Amino acid sequence: TRIGNGFDVHRFGPGDSVMLCGVPVAHSHGLVGHSDADVGLHALTDALLGALGAGDIGQHFPPTDPRWKGADSAAFLAHAGSLLAARGGRILNLDVTLICERPKVGPHREAMRARIAGILGIAVERVGVKATTTEGLGFTGRREGIAAQATA
Amino acid sequence: TRIGNGFDVHRFGPGDSVMLCGVPVAHSHGLVGHSDADVGLHALTDALLGALGAGDIGQHFPPTDPRWKGADSAAFLAHAGSLLAARGGRILNLDVTLICERPKVGPHREAMRARIAGILGIAVERVGVKATTTEGLGFTGRREGIAAQATA
Amino acid sequence: TRIGNGFDVHRFGPGDSVMLCGVPVAHSHGLVGHSDADVGLHALTDALLGALGAGDIGQHFPPTDPRWKGADSAAFLAHAGSLLAARGGRILNLDVTLICERPKVGPHREAMRARIAGILGIAVERVGVKATTTEGLGFTGRREGIAAQATA
Ligand SMILES: [Mg+2]
Ligand SMILES: [Mg+2]
Ligand SMILES: [Mg+2]
Repeated sequence: TRIGNGFDVHRFGPGDSVMLCGVPVAHSHGLVGHSDADVGLHALTDALLGALGAGDIGQHFPPTDPRWKGADSAAFLAHAGSLLAARGGRILNLDVTLICERPKVGPHREAMRARIAGILGIAVERVGVKATTTEGLGFTGRREGIAAQATA
Repeated sequence: TRIGNGFDVHRFGPGDSVMLCGVPVAHSHGLVGHSDADVGLHALTDALLGALGAGDIGQHFPPTDPRWKGADSAAFLAHAGSLLAARGGRILNLDVTLICERPKVGPHREAMRARIAGILGIAVERVGVKATTTEGLGFTGRREGIAAQATA
Repeated sequence: TRIGNGFDVHRFGPGDSVMLCGVPVAHSHGLVGHSDADVGLHALTDALLGALGAGDIGQHFPPTDPRWKGADSAAFLAHAGSLLAARGGRILNLDVTLICERPKVGPHREAMRARIAGILGIAVERVGVKATTTEGLGFTGRREGIAAQATA
C-alpha cells in the first residue's frame, strides 16, 4: 500500500460556472487557470502521482505548454491512473475535500463521485468527495478562490 | 485498507474556552459554530467518512438542522465510527493536526488522544494528535480561528 | 499499515537561499525559524510521528530549546525514522507537497527525493516530492512564506 496527498488552488474570475471534480457547476464566477482549472481533479491527480513518487501535475502537464490550454483535467487524472496501472498498481480508494464557501458541493457530490470513478475505471464506492468552508476566514473565506486537498 | 482526509476551520469569538478534540481548553476566546465547533473532531469525522466514501459531516449533520445546535461533536465522530463498523471496517489509526498560534495543544495532547480513542473504542496508541503554528501568517497566524486536518 | 499527516509553515525573511527537503535552494529570501526552517522535512517528520501516535516535532524538538537553534532538520526526520524502526515499523512511502509561488521546486525535485531517502535509508522510489502554487492567493500567494503538507 502507498499513499499520496494533493493540494491545489484556483482563483475565481469572470464566468458563470466552475468545473469541479469533472462536473460543471453553475456559479456566480468561473475559475481561472491554464486548463479548465478543476481544482478537485488536480488535487486527486497529484495524490496519485505522489503515491507513485512520479512527480507532480506541473511536471507532467506544464502550464506553459499550449497543449494544455483549456484542457479537460479528466485527461490529467486518467494519465495518472494509467501510470499507476502500468506499474501494476491498483487504486484502493480516493478522497477529496473541496474548500470553499460557494458553490455548494452537496447537490453535485454523487455526480462528482461517478465522474471520478468513470475516469479511473474504479467503483464509485471507492471515491469520496467532501466539502467544507473556512467560516469566512482566509482566501477561501473571502471567496477569492477554491482549494482542494486529496489523498489516494 | 482505505484512507480519508478531513479539513475544518472554526472562527474565534467571545468565550473563555474552546473544545478541541473532545477536550475543553481554557483560552482567551471561544470558537463559533452551530455545534460545539470542535474543529479537531470535525476533521477526524470527515476523514473517516471520506475513507468510507460516505459523504461529509455537513451532509450527515447539516448546520441548518436545529438538532445539532450546540451539539457535542463526539456524537458526530461516534456516528462515523459506527458507520465504519457497520460496514465491517476497522480503524488502523487516526491522525490530526491542529493549526493555530494559541491555545497550546501540547499540555492537552494525552487527554485528547484518550478522548478520541474512547469515543471510537480503539487503543490510544492508534491516535495521533499534533499541533503546529503558521508562524504568524494567514488567518490562523492572525489568530482569527483554528484549522484542523486529519487522516484516517 | 498506519498513516500520518504533517503540516508546517515558515515565513520568508532576509537571506539568499532556503533549505527545502534537505536541499539548499537559491532564492531572493531565506526562511525564518529556530532550526534551519526546512518546512518540507518538518511536515514529513510530523507525518511519521503522527503515524506512530508519537507526538509532534514541537514536542520532540522544542523551539525554545537552544540545542535546536539553527539545527539541520535532517536530524529531526532521522529521529522520527529511528523511532519507527525501534517499534518494528517500515516506511511504505512518503509524500510531501510544497506550497509556494517561488522558488521553483521542479529543478530540485530529484535531489530532494534522494536526500529524504538517504536520511531515512529507504529507496528513492518510495519518496514523492510535489509542488503547487496558490495562484497568488493567501499568504503563500503573497509570497510571505512557504507551507508544506506531508503524508506517510
Ligand atoms: Mg491546478
Ligand atoms: Mg466544523
Ligand atoms: Mg517548522
